[in-house]
Amino acid sequence: MASRTPSPTADRAERTAAPDRGAAGERPRRRLSVDERREQLIAVALELFSRRPPEEVSIDDIAAAAGASRPLVYHYFPGKQALYEASLRRAGRELSARFEEPMEGPLSERLYRVMGRYLDFVQSHGPGFAALLRGGSVAASAGTSAVIDEVRRAAHDQILAHLAIPAPSPGLRLTVRAWIANAEITSLEWLAERSVPLEELQLHLVQEFVASLTLTAAREPALAAELASFFADERPDGPTGRLVQDLAGLFAVPGILDAVTALAAGPQTVGPVDEAPAQATEGTAGAPAE
Amino acid sequence: MASRTPSPTADRAERTAAPDRGAAGERPRRRLSVDERREQLIAVALELFSRRPPEEVSIDDIAAAAGASRPLVYHYFPGKQALYEASLRRAGRELSARFEEPMEGPLSERLYRVMGRYLDFVQSHGPGFAALLRGGSVAASAGTSAVIDEVRRAAHDQILAHLAIPAPSPGLRLTVRAWIANAEITSLEWLAERSVPLEELQLHLVQEFVASLTLTAAREPALAAELASFFADERPDGPTGRLVQDLAGLFAVPGILDAVTALAAGPQTVGPVDEAPAQATEGTAGAPAE
Repeated sequence: MASRTPSPTADRAERTAAPDRGAAGERPRRRLSVDERREQLIAVALELFSRRPPEEVSIDDIAAAAGASRPLVYHYFPGKQALYEASLRRAGRELSARFEEPMEGPLSERLYRVMGRYLDFVQSHGPGFAALLRGGSVAASAGTSAVIDEVRRAAHDQILAHLAIPAPSPGLRLTVRAWIANAEITSLEWLAERSVPLEELQLHLVQEFVASLTLTAAREPALAAELASFFADERPDGPTGRLVQDLAGLFAVPGILDAVTALAAGPQTVGPVDEAPAQATEGTAGAPAE
Repeated sequence: MASRTPSPTADRAERTAAPDRGAAGERPRRRLSVDERREQLIAVALELFSRRPPEEVSIDDIAAAAGASRPLVYHYFPGKQALYEASLRRAGRELSARFEEPMEGPLSERLYRVMGRYLDFVQSHGPGFAALLRGGSVAASAGTSAVIDEVRRAAHDQILAHLAIPAPSPGLRLTVRAWIANAEITSLEWLAERSVPLEELQLHLVQEFVASLTLTAAREPALAAELASFFADERPDGPTGRLVQDLAGLFAVPGILDAVTALAAGPQTVGPVDEAPAQATEGTAGAPAE
């Protein structure tokens, strides 16, 4: 990893590079400090790497976009991979910052706002990093892997902080991680095909989180009280309210409620392959069992 | 990609390599044909790459495990990367074959059987391929990426074939892809931490698929009839039946049903920030709206 402390030789490199800029006929600009120049190169590289895969971005492209010479870029970064990793670290910090959300209001509405910012980031930076996130990028390395893991961890920690469940179980942690993977893959698929409006994706991902949380609570009775207070805080026109209304509409479709009620009654007779379904309890008509 | 047709020079290389094997004092063995030798090298490499990351497996390791000389291995494969990719292709074919399942019985039980075979594969081959699947493997390349994509496509196609929905919508396809990503990530997390029994994971993944399918149908009314026939085919002691029973138990927890019923009633008054919740309909007590 490149050191972030200014190098005493940077100024010399900057002067060496000056003729290149003059030759290109550009207007004179304020001399950048070592730190400013480094940050500028990273910003320019991030911009380029966000739009194109790394193999399609050269050091010359970055130098040209930064109004710098090739030797100057090499003075700050040993090569393209180092610059790629620095720009990925910057992207990771920007993305993690978008996960920050005040601990106020219904949980699904907080997550909905976060997902809006996340999807906005995917739309603007995703195209270039898609191959990296999907695996198989030529630029993948232990360094890029560490950045991606760090962003995933930040997302995971933010979600658990908002859930405010003391000592989350392994099952709940796994649910959160799996949902983060779902969000990643879904948004990458969306980038490739854009088959549904982005706002729909934002709502669906939040609703899928609510569903996963509910499933986890169904398996872990210790979470039931937390889930009750989660639902009590939600609003009818928020993502959770709309999900519940959509599900209520679905269960009004002929056949579905009957079939689900029959399943809820549980195995009433001896074995799984019994051909005569038991009489349904709780007053339902008893949908056919198969 | 290495050609699979036998090379006329292979026999010569085999003879050249013979002194090495003799020097190692091994018992004489039947001379392998070119194809057999190639397949044997891939099988041995797959075994090694399944247990360790690629950077910890050398051509010498593979040669030693295959009872072959280093030059012989190089005769068949230009280098470790080619052998890695060939073994990954073999692994991909083996994994895809595990997705094949007769079109018989309740859908969640078919998926449950497939997931049992998938998780068995993850357990035996996953450790070495985990870095590749998570991104950031030193061996990642366009070739490895193509193999992974092919396996994901096979899983996607199998699931859609079992769902037997003509002309699946983009939303349904996205649901299937996101669930496949969920299964991948969840099983990789499981490999790293083994925090829940594998049988639980098998059941949970199937139940999450059922939940995702239900959510998709809640958004897409065209799928409601398909979902009705899906639920009608399920059995009370199958994964779907057990999920419905767990959810029924969860909704019996004080507060949850009331809160959800209030959400299902929808926004009854003018706006989202209205402080006096409307009277709940359908005879519920009306849980606090926030």
